[in-house]
Amino acid sequence: MKNNILTITLCLAFTFSFSQTDEETLKSIYKTSLTNGMSYQWLDHLSNNIGGRLSGSKNAELAVDYTKAELEKLGLDKVWLQPVMVPKWERGEKELAYINTDGKIKKVNICALGGSLATPEKGITAEVVEVTDFEELEALGKEKIKGKIVFYNRPMQADLINTFNAYGGCVNQRYAGAMEAGKYGAVGVIVRSMNLRQDDYPHTGSMSYGDLPIENRIPSAAISTNDANVLSEALKKDKNLNFYFKQSCQQFDDVQSYNVIGEITGSAFPNEYIIVGGHLDSWDLGDGAHDDGAGVVQSMDVLRLLKESGITPKRSIRVVLFMNEENGLRGATEYAKIAEAKNENHIFALESDSGGFTPRGFSFATNATNFKQVLAWKPLFKPYLIHYFEQGGSGADVGPLKSETNVLAGLRPDSQRYFDHHHASNDTFEHVNKRELELGAATMTSLVYLYDKYGVNPVPEQQQIKD
Amino acid sequence: MKNNILTITLCLAFTFSFSQTDEETLKSIYKTSLTNGMSYQWLDHLSNNIGGRLSGSKNAELAVDYTKAELEKLGLDKVWLQPVMVPKWERGEKELAYINTDGKIKKVNICALGGSLATPEKGITAEVVEVTDFEELEALGKEKIKGKIVFYNRPMQADLINTFNAYGGCVNQRYAGAMEAGKYGAVGVIVRSMNLRQDDYPHTGSMSYGDLPIENRIPSAAISTNDANVLSEALKKDKNLNFYFKQSCQQFDDVQSYNVIGEITGSAFPNEYIIVGGHLDSWDLGDGAHDDGAGVVQSMDVLRLLKESGITPKRSIRVVLFMNEENGLRGATEYAKIAEAKNENHIFALESDSGGFTPRGFSFATNATNFKQVLAWKPLFKPYLIHYFEQGGSGADVGPLKSETNVLAGLRPDSQRYFDHHHASNDTFEHVNKRELELGAATMTSLVYLYDKYGVNPVPEQQQIKD
Repeated sequence: MKNNILTITLCLAFTFSFSQTDEETLKSIYKTSLTNGMSYQWLDHLSNNIGGRLSGSKNAELAVDYTKAELEKLGLDKVWLQPVMVPKWERGEKELAYINTDGKIKKVNICALGGSLATPEKGITAEVVEVTDFEELEALGKEKIKGKIVFYNRPMQADLINTFNAYGGCVNQRYAGAMEAGKYGAVGVIVRSMNLRQDDYPHTGSMSYGDLPIENRIPSAAISTNDANVLSEALKKDKNLNFYFKQSCQQFDDVQSYNVIGEITGSAFPNEYIIVGGHLDSWDLGDGAHDDGAGVVQSMDVLRLLKESGITPKRSIRVVLFMNEENGLRGATEYAKIAEAKNENHIFALESDSGGFTPRGFSFATNATNFKQVLAWKPLFKPYLIHYFEQGGSGADVGPLKSETNVLAGLRPDSQRYFDHHHASNDTFEHVNKRELELGAATMTSLVYLYDKYGVNPVPEQQQIKD
Repeated sequence: MKNNILTITLCLAFTFSFSQTDEETLKSIYKTSLTNGMSYQWLDHLSNNIGGRLSGSKNAELAVDYTKAELEKLGLDKVWLQPVMVPKWERGEKELAYINTDGKIKKVNICALGGSLATPEKGITAEVVEVTDFEELEALGKEKIKGKIVFYNRPMQADLINTFNAYGGCVNQRYAGAMEAGKYGAVGVIVRSMNLRQDDYPHTGSMSYGDLPIENRIPSAAISTNDANVLSEALKKDKNLNFYFKQSCQQFDDVQSYNVIGEITGSAFPNEYIIVGGHLDSWDLGDGAHDDGAGVVQSMDVLRLLKESGITPKRSIRVVLFMNEENGLRGATEYAKIAEAKNENHIFALESDSGGFTPRGFSFATNATNFKQVLAWKPLFKPYLIHYFEQGGSGADVGPLKSETNVLAGLRPDSQRYFDHHHASNDTFEHVNKRELELGAATMTSLVYLYDKYGVNPVPEQQQIKD
């Protein structure tokens, strides 16, 4: 009985509605972001003055220093660095690859996958076996694969409206392709780039050898979508063609790095934390403007836009710029570990890591009651053409903070162009539109404002009284 | 009483619902557009092999020939050219402009507005009066304006979410700026480009002298947003600075051109017409990929996608590629005139003329009953992230077809980047994303399919029985 009373009391503390003040506050937040935002200026520096920021690199250090210094200018209550050891992998010299068929050499565009081994210094030359999935690989078996280069050529599915679903349907080729092909004695792996467009950019990304014995670990690289088609066509004419590739990437010992954190301490409930974040590291080929410079600067601007809009948060609002999302998730793991050790109650965590494109809404990982709450706020966002409020995943960096009662969310921008740039040398500042970026920052700030004002339902689903 | 019975009968003939078949048909249409669409390939030709297609130009002729030939390949029931006389204006040599202040020359980026007069061959040099609107101009009066260049510098309002509203709030400076300034004896007009971004591209567009006497007609040009700021800053330091500009544009006699039309004749109601269209002409600076190459190729693909999806239309479906939207609307006027003369019943007309960006929905110009009908179909579009169904304008080319009972609609793509490119030399093919374009074509096809299947309410609002 005592428990039930407690439950009822707690349930009354949050609400399924909003007020006219909220409408006005959102209007002010959007206006401020579009007329006086900082996200684009910060992204310009991060992209053009620093550039690609792979974990453990000099640029990643510069990005830590820069974002900390910028957060310190905002008059937050605290800004600090949270130490974390991160992997360090370097690409080395530009990769080289060609197809040798019919006495002719055709150069193709490849790049080493992150975490891959180098080839021997003189490169690898071998015949190629084209497959579309691991089942096909298994069916071919050792006999047909040993000594060959395995070429994974399953394209992203063009008729899926959400391009992240198309990515999800292909990315195992990149992540586990070398691990699987290595089991059958392949000498190298070439993967079709995770790109829905036909172009000449190879797209890197993380891969893993898992527990594969050292002697079975083989170099793996991505090939551009245009050249994947070239290779596939060439194989149809000459299945015994030779493929040559050379890469000189290298894994070093882990190095010291940091998450960058800024906080406005809550005026009423300082141990209820709301965090907003993106990842500070990026791949090395472009300048990481969309992935995830956009999420970094939008998250920084959330705290600034709250201040500019005259909002004094009741709860503690943190921006967390996570280190090492791309190839280790060490920053996110460390942040969650420390949050748990300090018993910090993270009621809401919002991640922006899907590019700086026009925001369409959010995906929410939470229970039914909390989802019902946020759905009640949806009409507030209609004037800003924010329409997507669905249950689903949140993001890799906030994921470890999941609890029974909190809300994790991911900003969902328009996804059509994301994989044109993802992990490639054309993920650059000029492909980010200022207004689209600023609309994203305003959309995030608005949701943070609402969660700060109304909180979340603190009662686990199974203890709630059903009406 | 007889009228009432007729009204009831007619009202029962159309419906406020949809079926499972419709869900499957839409799925098939989107899949076909994304995996087997033609719009991107057509746009490539129109943009890169033909280019900018101003009315009366050689390129406009080539575009007529090309699109007619491509429509003829689709196996439609009829393809024809509808003759229309159009204005012919040529830009001539590249414009030249500079600011002369403090003994220094600063070159700036301008372009003549469409329909403007040339300057004298040696150009115009004069002092500059900066204003933000016509009221300010009137307040200054003849005394302060005579002999000067008027510089309209009211920027597009950044906090409006729909950028077309920001355009609507500024475009009178461009269209009527010379007409107004000419009344007060100004010698030239420079207008801040209709662009929400700060960059170096001047944006052209139509202007008119209205009934202004010949002697008061003055040359007018647009200046890039960056240079508008430069000029404004320079004027703060030196209000007597000189501005020089030179342009050699010219108006010729009207020339023969054409609307391009293709038709699938309706199997059940051949005199009920559904049309889908965009405009074939474009400004001359870029290649007109977004404005309105995108609308042209999407409209062409609507008829093709219907055929590819095995749909046999009950009503007659036409694609109309209108000539001369940009500087005269002669094609649209002619099409509507002939449709009226032939007593063709246009029940639904859909225009795509807002760029080839990710589609968000439609704006509908219709009565309450027909709007209620289309709202009932909205859930069908949710899987495709189409969420914007609002009453409002349709488009310039379909506008003349308005009747009491029909439905006019405009495709509404994401508007954030549209004015980065609109009427400028960077309105080019590489700024159109294939998937975004194809999603637009599929969205248009889906709505055309539904109107063909269900028709519209044929009873005028005031004759309807209210329940």
